[in-house]
Amino acid sequence: MKATAKAHTNIALIKYWGKRDESLILPMNSSLSLTLDGFYTTTSVEFRTELTKDQFYLNGEAVVDGQFDRVTGFLNLIRSFAGKDNFFATVNSTNHVPTAAGFASSASGFAALAAAAVKALGLPVDETVLSRLTRQGSGSACRSIYGGFVEWEKGSKADGTDSYAVPIAPADHWDIRVAAVVLSSKAKKVLSREGMKRTVDTSAFYSSWIDGIPHDMDQIKDGIRTKDFEKVGKIAEANCLKMHATTLGANPPFSYWHDTTMAVMHAVRELRENGIPAYFTIDAGPNVKVLYLPENEQILKQSLRDIPGVHDVISSKAGQGISYL
Amino acid sequence: MKATAKAHTNIALIKYWGKRDESLILPMNSSLSLTLDGFYTTTSVEFRTELTKDQFYLNGEAVVDGQFDRVTGFLNLIRSFAGKDNFFATVNSTNHVPTAAGFASSASGFAALAAAAVKALGLPVDETVLSRLTRQGSGSACRSIYGGFVEWEKGSKADGTDSYAVPIAPADHWDIRVAAVVLSSKAKKVLSREGMKRTVDTSAFYSSWIDGIPHDMDQIKDGIRTKDFEKVGKIAEANCLKMHATTLGANPPFSYWHDTTMAVMHAVRELRENGIPAYFTIDAGPNVKVLYLPENEQILKQSLRDIPGVHDVISSKAGQGISYL
Repeated sequence: MKATAKAHTNIALIKYWGKRDESLILPMNSSLSLTLDGFYTTTSVEFRTELTKDQFYLNGEAVVDGQFDRVTGFLNLIRSFAGKDNFFATVNSTNHVPTAAGFASSASGFAALAAAAVKALGLPVDETVLSRLTRQGSGSACRSIYGGFVEWEKGSKADGTDSYAVPIAPADHWDIRVAAVVLSSKAKKVLSREGMKRTVDTSAFYSSWIDGIPHDMDQIKDGIRTKDFEKVGKIAEANCLKMHATTLGANPPFSYWHDTTMAVMHAVRELRENGIPAYFTIDAGPNVKVLYLPENEQILKQSLRDIPGVHDVISSKAGQGISYL
Repeated sequence: MKATAKAHTNIALIKYWGKRDESLILPMNSSLSLTLDGFYTTTSVEFRTELTKDQFYLNGEAVVDGQFDRVTGFLNLIRSFAGKDNFFATVNSTNHVPTAAGFASSASGFAALAAAAVKALGLPVDETVLSRLTRQGSGSACRSIYGGFVEWEKGSKADGTDSYAVPIAPADHWDIRVAAVVLSSKAKKVLSREGMKRTVDTSAFYSSWIDGIPHDMDQIKDGIRTKDFEKVGKIAEANCLKMHATTLGANPPFSYWHDTTMAVMHAVRELRENGIPAYFTIDAGPNVKVLYLPENEQILKQSLRDIPGVHDVISSKAGQGISYL
């Protein structure tokens, strides 16, 4: 009744941006990500008959009741799926995702939790079912079931049964790297879930965002297959800019960007003008991630570190999918 | 055969963004601006039969042949309009528009040139005809014929005869102020005409931009009529953000913003959160203009000057239309 799983976070190159169902976490559009070796969560789940409620330890410390409702809610889903509603668990989760790097730990966290919980209960689920379950904990977590390049197919059914991740190319297909640029300034007044919802509900540009996804998805998959870095980078960067443009058309408008966000974007463009292929992408926050090729690692990291307002640069290779310890 | 005119620049609150005819300078959308007292151009035009070509003096210095083709081209239009194709002119133009403030001198420049040239030739033109002529020198210049709040009606005719400015409210209707924030960094790699064209031709968001104009125009005119500063400011700021969002959806995407542009935008939002009503607007470049009310002038200017990367803040009241000296 105990299992431990490890899951890596992922960075979306085609962004997940908008829900069509808030409670089942069904997306408005398909998305595509790269799983990252450098940032992960390990989680052990032990179901014990003597427990009367769940216990949650995060990075070695007990979390008090009421402070981990998302975890309990997700375990309820797994229990219900297994027909074991009265089995409570001790969950021990350790994040190797530096908060400052601007990755949500929810992607690796919910993927590891889902994998460990399902294995602890001895459920015979394949990766598709696991991805579908994981999606209901945190949308983008469903992509972290697989390594390398992964697509989350939005699906069209109201019950969400056709909305899960599928592998596009494994981590060893192509050595693409990602640098997470850590900003000196604290992130502030940035909405994430609320921003997404406001944009879907009010942005003048939201329907154009949705309309452009199939083209971007076709093109980036083509670029991944042929290992065309410029093509993948251009599509990823343009897709990110379109996502952020939708926030400027919301009512009221808003932006996730800081001044240093802008400076990093300009620096990446300047690197390209100087012959270093590099492309940025930005999630629903001020932090910038930069795609690059291994031969440019040193100059890229140094150039990014030299930008005023940049505190550190942490790089990562492509990572594997779920594993069990 | 000689006349001198003075024209002020203007700041668009509903942006002119996209041409439907490049040569006649016909816009895709109607726009609305406030004429600014603080920034102006005085231009004298003297037609002399003994000249065999035009002469142009800018800020007291002779401009060499071939370096003022836009001026000559515009005078050709006036000459043709007057039926006096063989009358050449000495033009003496002085800009009181600090370049660093990020105002194009073309708006006040072409308005003053048009007014002086037409008067020098003794043409009996009214302000509508003058605005229509001015438009063909520089689009946004057509709004500088009038003072205060001015709308440039896009018109629908292919020959442009119904595309000109109309006055909405005079300068003394309402004491609204504009602060031009001068950035320390040099503007670089910023496209203006080319950026507009690329956006019209390729942006995923351009049609949504156009679709939103009638609503923004109705609302801002309502706000001007009722002197509702919050309403005018919100619409102006949102309209500017939508314009800039269209550049992020262009192919390839681009942005006019610098890191300090972003810092000023955040500072203006922070001022509002602290109870100081202020709203920003940004043209096709990195500089920010801030709308405010006279009672907040001191705190607003000081707050903006305190932003790292801001060199100076120059403020202006609403200005008058064309005058003759």
